[in-house]
Amino acid sequence: MKNVTHAKCVRCGAEYEAVPGLTTCTCGGMLDIQYDYGYIRTLVSRETLSGCRDYSMWRYRPFLPVEPDSPPTPLRVGWSPLYPAPRLAQVLGLKALYIKDDGQNPTSSLKDRASAMAVVKAREAGADTIACSSTGNAASSLAGNAAAAGLHTYIFVPARAPKGKVAQLMIFGATVITVDGSYEDTFELSKAAIDRWGWYNRNAAINPYLLEGKKTVTLEILEQLGWQVPDYIALSVGDGCTIAGAWKGLKDLYAAGLIDRLPRLISVQAEGCCPLNRAIQTGEPWSPMEENTLADSIAVGVPRNADKALMAIRESQGVAVNVSDGEILAAMRLLGRTCGVFGEPAGVTGTAGVKKALELGLIDPASTVVSVVTGNGLKDVANGIQAAGEPMLVRPDMDCLLSAFAQHSITP
Amino acid sequence: MKNVTHAKCVRCGAEYEAVPGLTTCTCGGMLDIQYDYGYIRTLVSRETLSGCRDYSMWRYRPFLPVEPDSPPTPLRVGWSPLYPAPRLAQVLGLKALYIKDDGQNPTSSLKDRASAMAVVKAREAGADTIACSSTGNAASSLAGNAAAAGLHTYIFVPARAPKGKVAQLMIFGATVITVDGSYEDTFELSKAAIDRWGWYNRNAAINPYLLEGKKTVTLEILEQLGWQVPDYIALSVGDGCTIAGAWKGLKDLYAAGLIDRLPRLISVQAEGCCPLNRAIQTGEPWSPMEENTLADSIAVGVPRNADKALMAIRESQGVAVNVSDGEILAAMRLLGRTCGVFGEPAGVTGTAGVKKALELGLIDPASTVVSVVTGNGLKDVANGIQAAGEPMLVRPDMDCLLSAFAQHSITP
Repeated sequence: MKNVTHAKCVRCGAEYEAVPGLTTCTCGGMLDIQYDYGYIRTLVSRETLSGCRDYSMWRYRPFLPVEPDSPPTPLRVGWSPLYPAPRLAQVLGLKALYIKDDGQNPTSSLKDRASAMAVVKAREAGADTIACSSTGNAASSLAGNAAAAGLHTYIFVPARAPKGKVAQLMIFGATVITVDGSYEDTFELSKAAIDRWGWYNRNAAINPYLLEGKKTVTLEILEQLGWQVPDYIALSVGDGCTIAGAWKGLKDLYAAGLIDRLPRLISVQAEGCCPLNRAIQTGEPWSPMEENTLADSIAVGVPRNADKALMAIRESQGVAVNVSDGEILAAMRLLGRTCGVFGEPAGVTGTAGVKKALELGLIDPASTVVSVVTGNGLKDVANGIQAAGEPMLVRPDMDCLLSAFAQHSITP
Repeated sequence: MKNVTHAKCVRCGAEYEAVPGLTTCTCGGMLDIQYDYGYIRTLVSRETLSGCRDYSMWRYRPFLPVEPDSPPTPLRVGWSPLYPAPRLAQVLGLKALYIKDDGQNPTSSLKDRASAMAVVKAREAGADTIACSSTGNAASSLAGNAAAAGLHTYIFVPARAPKGKVAQLMIFGATVITVDGSYEDTFELSKAAIDRWGWYNRNAAINPYLLEGKKTVTLEILEQLGWQVPDYIALSVGDGCTIAGAWKGLKDLYAAGLIDRLPRLISVQAEGCCPLNRAIQTGEPWSPMEENTLADSIAVGVPRNADKALMAIRESQGVAVNVSDGEILAAMRLLGRTCGVFGEPAGVTGTAGVKKALELGLIDPASTVVSVVTGNGLKDVANGIQAAGEPMLVRPDMDCLLSAFAQHSITP
């Protein structure tokens, strides 16, 4: 990996060799992969990317911490569509809005980017088993990407994980342990088991490589925008890894000379579980919260990547905004009706935050905003139905249809 | 549309001008869009496609019945991944197998290809409302693609449609009418309503353009294989439109000189609902059957596109094979574990049929086969769980984990 120099602790600054099995610093801090951007500039430019025909996250190998001879993962991860959303922008009163639909990944969430990276690094480490704890998407993406590559997985999920995500795990042949407790309990049990059996660790706040996979979402966004830098990029925030990864990708592009300014981040959390945004808003250190939101993927009371996430939001002069569960459900309907995009609750939380930030006057309506939808609504059908309601039921008869239309005030 | 000459009835041979609002022939037969392949040869070649950067179904515009100035649809439909599946091939005892994962479409099924076509043709017809009946996927794809394009939809679904598909419809803002009856009842009510209110008709066996959208799946497969023609292409079959579309795509490529031989089709139906395969196997005309299968998308007792489907299977010297619901569930597990692909029951029925055809000696193990997975398993989570089982549940404690592992005979 000539593009990687070393790994560095974000807390104490200690430096480590970038071996495949890296976890956290001895001080407990997270590690951050450091690059030689001078070397990267010799490998990549707007022109080389424009000529690249690999439409997956692996088109960005010059920015990724993988050995040159490591094969890519079997599933097609990344290069999800970036849709202009003029009608939704109009509804929100915003100059320009783009929706990055990362639910269009092999296992239907952004987490595939991190899991594909985990599979490559596990192979480099010579491991045949990978483990993680997850509220669902990291787990299902790991199970799918590992199954495609012929690796085994042990997966710890909290009991509240939606059925869709659990069904994916089981189909992909993972050994699944449902933990009767919170995400925090689940994380701790997985940690103990990983220590005991020496599995390759795909916990995103332990393994510093995963964030490097996630950063490909912003590498793509900028390339898909023709390198026109938007004013804001909005993301839902739970553990903190995704927003930290998004920021890393943007800084990489800046350091490599592919963009000449940086967008600001919009960090969106659920009102019922917003420890990171609370820290931004109060200026106090973050402290744990209960996990009171239906957006299961971001119901993280003890964010494992707080250091990097807070640093990312602050460095970008970001905006922190919290939304209610009702606002999340409304955003599901809004994205579906105006864009044809069906996101899961946590997946649309970023978009709910854009609406809220405009209402609160936190962002200028003359801005250009990209909102990342991080997961597909099919993963959580119960909340989809809660958001949108049940359809009318009629007997197969025109008179029944006419009276049902009348009852629902529908005039075709 | 200089590439289109006219539409022709497959039953009586009557010819029609290819106007956007075409439905069936006055004799009741389905129409088939006819092309000027000499003209198409001047537009497209392996080289022009190799240089095309539009990675969606619209890269095949020379083969599609749309006006040159018709804008493409907003959602990114098509160019789904074609995965080599060496481990599954080994399990099945097959020389080479590829999985075309069409669950990787915007609304997670192959039907997006037909619905995107419907949206373009509805716009060409000046319509602002589209309607259809569907067991689920045609409906959800129409709702999503129409919502993205700003069109209204009226959608008729049978009461048995899985919750995931219904949730999609509601989120996309369709007016959904659940019909308390069979697919046949649902189809007839939608037909009466479309006649009454003059909506643009997206019923695949009425509107001849939809099949032309579906054919892009085989155009893609052959291009993704580098124009190496496989021996077989396996598909699940319900209404008959998809397999007829697949065959049309192959014949188009042959007529345009892009391939020099044609693969054979493997038509796979559920044992409990196989009117088309029964006709192939017995040589008798098809007759209705009950709809006894958990694979809801192909539970079609009265196939609306029987003429074209039977013609396609026969012309290709195809193989007809029926599978049990148990074999369908087994195929879900098999695809998940060996390929990291999660298909819905009807989505994996083609793969179940490949296994069965090998077991019955209907196809040579030295063949190269492409199996199309037509829909994502997240659409039907209940059957996913039925296929793969529920995970173990433990309290957050290492001793509990150890005893759960012992109980399940797991030795990490």
